[in-house]
Amino acid sequence: MVDIVIVGSVALDTVKTPFGEVKEVLGGAATYSSYAASFFSKPGIVAVVGEDFPSEHLDLLKGKEIDLNGVKKEGKTFRWQGRYEYDMNEAKTLKTELNSFENFEPELPEEYKKTKYVFLANINPELQLQVLEQIEQPEIVMLDTMNLWIQTKKEQLLEVIKKVNVLLMNDSEARQLFETPSLVKAASSALKLGPKHVIIKKGEHGALLFTNNSHFNAPGYPLEVIKDPTGCGDSFAGALIGYLAKSGLDEIRKAIIYGSVVASFNAEDFSLNRLKQISNEDVYSRYKEFEKMREF
Amino acid sequence: MVDIVIVGSVALDTVKTPFGEVKEVLGGAATYSSYAASFFSKPGIVAVVGEDFPSEHLDLLKGKEIDLNGVKKEGKTFRWQGRYEYDMNEAKTLKTELNSFENFEPELPEEYKKTKYVFLANINPELQLQVLEQIEQPEIVMLDTMNLWIQTKKEQLLEVIKKVNVLLMNDSEARQLFETPSLVKAASSALKLGPKHVIIKKGEHGALLFTNNSHFNAPGYPLEVIKDPTGCGDSFAGALIGYLAKSGLDEIRKAIIYGSVVASFNAEDFSLNRLKQISNEDVYSRYKEFEKMREF
Repeated sequence: MVDIVIVGSVALDTVKTPFGEVKEVLGGAATYSSYAASFFSKPGIVAVVGEDFPSEHLDLLKGKEIDLNGVKKEGKTFRWQGRYEYDMNEAKTLKTELNSFENFEPELPEEYKKTKYVFLANINPELQLQVLEQIEQPEIVMLDTMNLWIQTKKEQLLEVIKKVNVLLMNDSEARQLFETPSLVKAASSALKLGPKHVIIKKGEHGALLFTNNSHFNAPGYPLEVIKDPTGCGDSFAGALIGYLAKSGLDEIRKAIIYGSVVASFNAEDFSLNRLKQISNEDVYSRYKEFEKMREF
Repeated sequence: MVDIVIVGSVALDTVKTPFGEVKEVLGGAATYSSYAASFFSKPGIVAVVGEDFPSEHLDLLKGKEIDLNGVKKEGKTFRWQGRYEYDMNEAKTLKTELNSFENFEPELPEEYKKTKYVFLANINPELQLQVLEQIEQPEIVMLDTMNLWIQTKKEQLLEVIKKVNVLLMNDSEARQLFETPSLVKAASSALKLGPKHVIIKKGEHGALLFTNNSHFNAPGYPLEVIKDPTGCGDSFAGALIGYLAKSGLDEIRKAIIYGSVVASFNAEDFSLNRLKQISNEDVYSRYKEFEKMREF
C-alpha cells in the first residue's frame, strides 16, 4: 500500500548553470517529488519511461522504497534541456522532447486507487485529471503546474484546480494565471476557485501560504553553494505532501518548512546528487536551523 | 538632544510606477528614514535643501518632532527622477540633479556630536565619513549605500564600511560590491571588513541578517496594494535604527521586523502619503501580524 500517489514526469535532463553542466541525468517532477516525499512517507509514481531509461535510476528510487508499479515502459524517455543564468530563479527551457509522454494514458494499479494523498505534479492537466478520476476517495489533492499549461491548456487547468484542496504555483505563474502583479490578489482569486490552501513558491526567497483567513511566510534557506535549482520546486512539493501524509493537513506550515529544507539541499548539486547523500537526520537538523533563523 | 543623527538626502522626487505618477514630491533618504525613525525615537537630520524647498515639507517633519537644526538652506534642492516597471523591486533612475548637495560640507550642531546612534543613509561616502568624524563617541553606526557609489567611490565606501557596526545593503548591491552571486558569501566578506551585523534587504522578499555565528530571515509583508516602493529601503532603515535607539542592539531582530512593517506601509502610496496617515498603533498591529505569519 502506498501513502501518496504522484503523477508527473520521469525524465532525462540536460542542464547548464554558471557552475557546471550535465547531460541526460536523472530528472523529472515525479522523480524529484517522490524522492523528497520518501523522507516522510511511502509514495508511488504514475508515469512512463522509455526502453532507453537506465535501470540504475529505477534502482535508486526502489532503494528509497518508492513504489514503481504505476510506471510503464515504452518508446523513448521524456527529455528536457534547460539553462540558468546568474539569477537562478528561472530556468530557460532550450528543448522539450515529450516522447513516450505524448500518448501516455495513465492507468492506476488497483492498490493506488484507495490512496488518500495525491500529488498532481507538473504535467499536462488532462493527465492530471485522468489520474484524479481513478482515485476513489482522495482526501488531500495537491496540484503543481507551469507556464506552458497556463498558455496552452488554461481551461483544462482551471477545471483541475477546482478539484484540488492544495494549489501550488510559483510566483510568476500565479501572476500570469490570475493576471495581476499582486500575489495577494492572485492567491485570493485562486482561493475563490475552490482550493482551501494556496502556496506560492518564490525560489530562494521561500514560499507563502494563503488560506481564507491567514497567511504564512516561509523563508528560503540562505545557501553558500547553489549549483543547480532544477527540481527544487518538485522537491519542495514532494517533502510537503510527504510530511502531510504523515502528520495531516493541520501541520501544513511545518510541512512547508520541510519542503524548503529538502529543496535547499537539492539546489546544492546537479540532478539528485545531493538528495542521495542526505539522511533523515540531516533533514531534521536543517529544520531546526529554520526554527532558529526566524525567532525574533 | 536627539537620539539619532541621520545624514542623507532631502529631495524632490518625480516618480512613475505602473499605478500612477507624481512630480516633485517630498523624498530623499534622510526624509524617509527620519520619518520612520520618529515612530520610536527622536532623530535629527544633517542635510541641505534649496531656497526653493517648500516650507510645508519642513513643517511635516517638525510635526513628527524631527530635529532640523542640521539642515542647511542654500541653492537649489536635490532632485531625483525614477521609474518602476511591474517588477517593482528595482528603480530605474532617469535623472539625478545633485544641486545644493554638490558642494555640501556637513557641519554638525554641537548637540548632535554627543549622539550614540548614527545612520549614514545613502549618500556620497565622503560625506558619510565627514559626519562620522564629528561624532565623539558613537555606539551604533549603521550605513546604507547604493550602486552609484560602488561604481564611482568604491575605495572610500570600503573605508567607511570599516568604521560601522551595522552594514545595510540591498541584495544586488551586496552581490556587486563583493563580486559573488551568493548572498551568504557576500555577507561573509562584509563581516570580515568589520561590521558585526550585515543586513541584506530583498525588497518585497524581506531581509536577511548575518552575524559571525547566526543568520535571521525576516519576511516581507504580502501587500495587496503596492503603489510606489520609493523610500522603502530608507523607511526600513529608519524604523530599524529608531527601534535600536530605543531598545538596544540586542533587539536587532525585532528592529528588523519593525523596519519591514514601516517599509510595507510606505509602499502603499507615493511619497510619504501613507506614512503620514499611520499611528504607532497601526505599526504595532502590523508587527503582531508578522508574528502570526511566521509561526509554524
